[in-house]
Amino acid sequence: MRSITVELGERSYPIHIGSGLLRDIGRHCVKAGFPLRSPLLIVSDSEVAPRYLPMVEAALRGEGYVVVSHVIPAGEASKSLAVYEEVITTAIQAGLDRSSAVLALGGGVVGDLAGFVAASYMRGIGFIQIPTTILAHDSSVGGKVAVNHPLAKNMIGAFYQPSLVLYDLDTLSTLPPRQISSGLAEVVKHGLILDRDFAYWCLEHASELLSLNTEALGYALERGCAIKARVVSNDEREHGQRAFLNLGHTIGHAIEAVGGYGVFLHGEAIAIGMAGSALLAAKLGRERVIYEDTIAMLSALSLPVRLPAEYSVDELMEAMMHDKKFKEGKMTFIVPDSIGAVSIVNDVQQSAVREVLAQLKKEGSPW
Amino acid sequence: MRSITVELGERSYPIHIGSGLLRDIGRHCVKAGFPLRSPLLIVSDSEVAPRYLPMVEAALRGEGYVVVSHVIPAGEASKSLAVYEEVITTAIQAGLDRSSAVLALGGGVVGDLAGFVAASYMRGIGFIQIPTTILAHDSSVGGKVAVNHPLAKNMIGAFYQPSLVLYDLDTLSTLPPRQISSGLAEVVKHGLILDRDFAYWCLEHASELLSLNTEALGYALERGCAIKARVVSNDEREHGQRAFLNLGHTIGHAIEAVGGYGVFLHGEAIAIGMAGSALLAAKLGRERVIYEDTIAMLSALSLPVRLPAEYSVDELMEAMMHDKKFKEGKMTFIVPDSIGAVSIVNDVQQSAVREVLAQLKKEGSPW
Repeated sequence: MRSITVELGERSYPIHIGSGLLRDIGRHCVKAGFPLRSPLLIVSDSEVAPRYLPMVEAALRGEGYVVVSHVIPAGEASKSLAVYEEVITTAIQAGLDRSSAVLALGGGVVGDLAGFVAASYMRGIGFIQIPTTILAHDSSVGGKVAVNHPLAKNMIGAFYQPSLVLYDLDTLSTLPPRQISSGLAEVVKHGLILDRDFAYWCLEHASELLSLNTEALGYALERGCAIKARVVSNDEREHGQRAFLNLGHTIGHAIEAVGGYGVFLHGEAIAIGMAGSALLAAKLGRERVIYEDTIAMLSALSLPVRLPAEYSVDELMEAMMHDKKFKEGKMTFIVPDSIGAVSIVNDVQQSAVREVLAQLKKEGSPW
Repeated sequence: MRSITVELGERSYPIHIGSGLLRDIGRHCVKAGFPLRSPLLIVSDSEVAPRYLPMVEAALRGEGYVVVSHVIPAGEASKSLAVYEEVITTAIQAGLDRSSAVLALGGGVVGDLAGFVAASYMRGIGFIQIPTTILAHDSSVGGKVAVNHPLAKNMIGAFYQPSLVLYDLDTLSTLPPRQISSGLAEVVKHGLILDRDFAYWCLEHASELLSLNTEALGYALERGCAIKARVVSNDEREHGQRAFLNLGHTIGHAIEAVGGYGVFLHGEAIAIGMAGSALLAAKLGRERVIYEDTIAMLSALSLPVRLPAEYSVDELMEAMMHDKKFKEGKMTFIVPDSIGAVSIVNDVQQSAVREVLAQLKKEGSPW
């Protein structure tokens, strides 16, 4: 088992990564200080629950906990205030008290929803993340929890740290290939932002990662979580460095918004966005090798690096302006300075971004 | 103008108390660091808005702010997730961003609801309390914000501190007498808990307080807020001393639940609860003068100290057991040790509480 600590003073917490951890969840809850007399609530979704919920429930009950489960429909639509209220109702009916915890068994949607329940039930109770996707290695570290409003994603939420993250690699074995690549996009992103060696390690070990080799995957998730944990420790509420984590996300979010959520998976959209950031870097005078190596890394992980021709530059620009409320012709982007280092650039010309988007739609070398 | 600072490290904030402060709200917002480019959202209710909303809007616009207002129906029913979502919708449509603030112009319901909006919109934006009741001197200090769930009050919320509390005494002038007494119950409670001199000062100046004498009321609210601020500074998340603030609340909440919300005002129910706590103190061996002086203080403020005969001891006991999930025959109460000092007593016998409730229904001296 690999373990990392996210350092946040009295809100510090451990991340455990390894095989067969679900069976030990009861012991981990006791160790984290949750009393047996307080009921636990597991939130999971309709895809994950049939596979892993019985094992988690049994492990907790075996330790002596009273457990109640709430299974939501899989998919982004469950990140709503209506589903949130249903989960709160379950928590009240099950008698959860101030010493109870909410366990999120699933991917990012389950983690975000269950996390906001934990953050707000009785003004905050315990929260345990049990991510079952690679992508959730990102969302389960850092304490951003939220539900969507019909008018905008992640508009209602909190910064709320878990007490514990338990990452059982066995739960990743049933992921479809596109989900694996999508998750690895955020893994390699952490290297691109802050850890040059790790970024190139991902390139060298891409085939092992894609085949879910336990040793390689365990190492990659440990490194990815550790980099994210370091950024979050330095800047929990995103006043500075935490914005680095948004590399590729401004363009990526626009692709998701214009294409419709689900056409590209989140990591796929971010991959195209990171390719765009590297192109932008070249326009701003950084070395072309940044773009070339970024493309090599993303391609090795079977991620897209081009925009389909049908995407309109105008629509993408409009989505970006709406997302971030950029004003007066200047935009803010996270731009790579080299592989493993980025800057926040506040005065990017809209025209440069338009050129990048147009270039992303063309095949072949941009130079 | 009187000013107090609630000391909470980087979340410290000022409370300003005085006459004519509403007109200066724009200047205070600038001083608190809210930029003119970020829209402000005022939440108020159907009783307060007609009187004070135009002045507050004008003062903010006069300073250069873009302002949007959301008026909720007056009353506890507005502290719901449904109304919460409506206010969030207004915030999104008005384009509130991470540098914006929500201003709560009203009593406890408005403060609790608007505070939870501020705590959760974009994971937390600015929050300014403008209490317009005496009772809200209590709820506006301390950062407890919440909405109700159909199954239980205040079940969904956060600990979220305001950036500023602006207490304009002029807004209290239109309060009906029962509301004034109800608010003063929490004022004198702060003396009973931690400040003997202030408790007796309230007794001596009861008639000035009831007539809303500006000098007396300003001093009383300053002292009340300062005591509460001290308790909150020491124990923001209610792990210890903050529980002292619940003096009278276990019985008080039961009275509200059994009688129906609104039969007794909150402060009235708490007053009866404080009389009960003083009776319990005598049963536990404390001096009888605690009870006698408590009754004198509450009566001087025109507050009830007896339970109407129709209240059933069984029903009240059941409501208390449900509220706090007391187990195995023992209950926890905040018990006065003298006027100005209280203890948390964890092993109160249910039979003693039953006797207290029965005694509260009888006229005349309990000895």
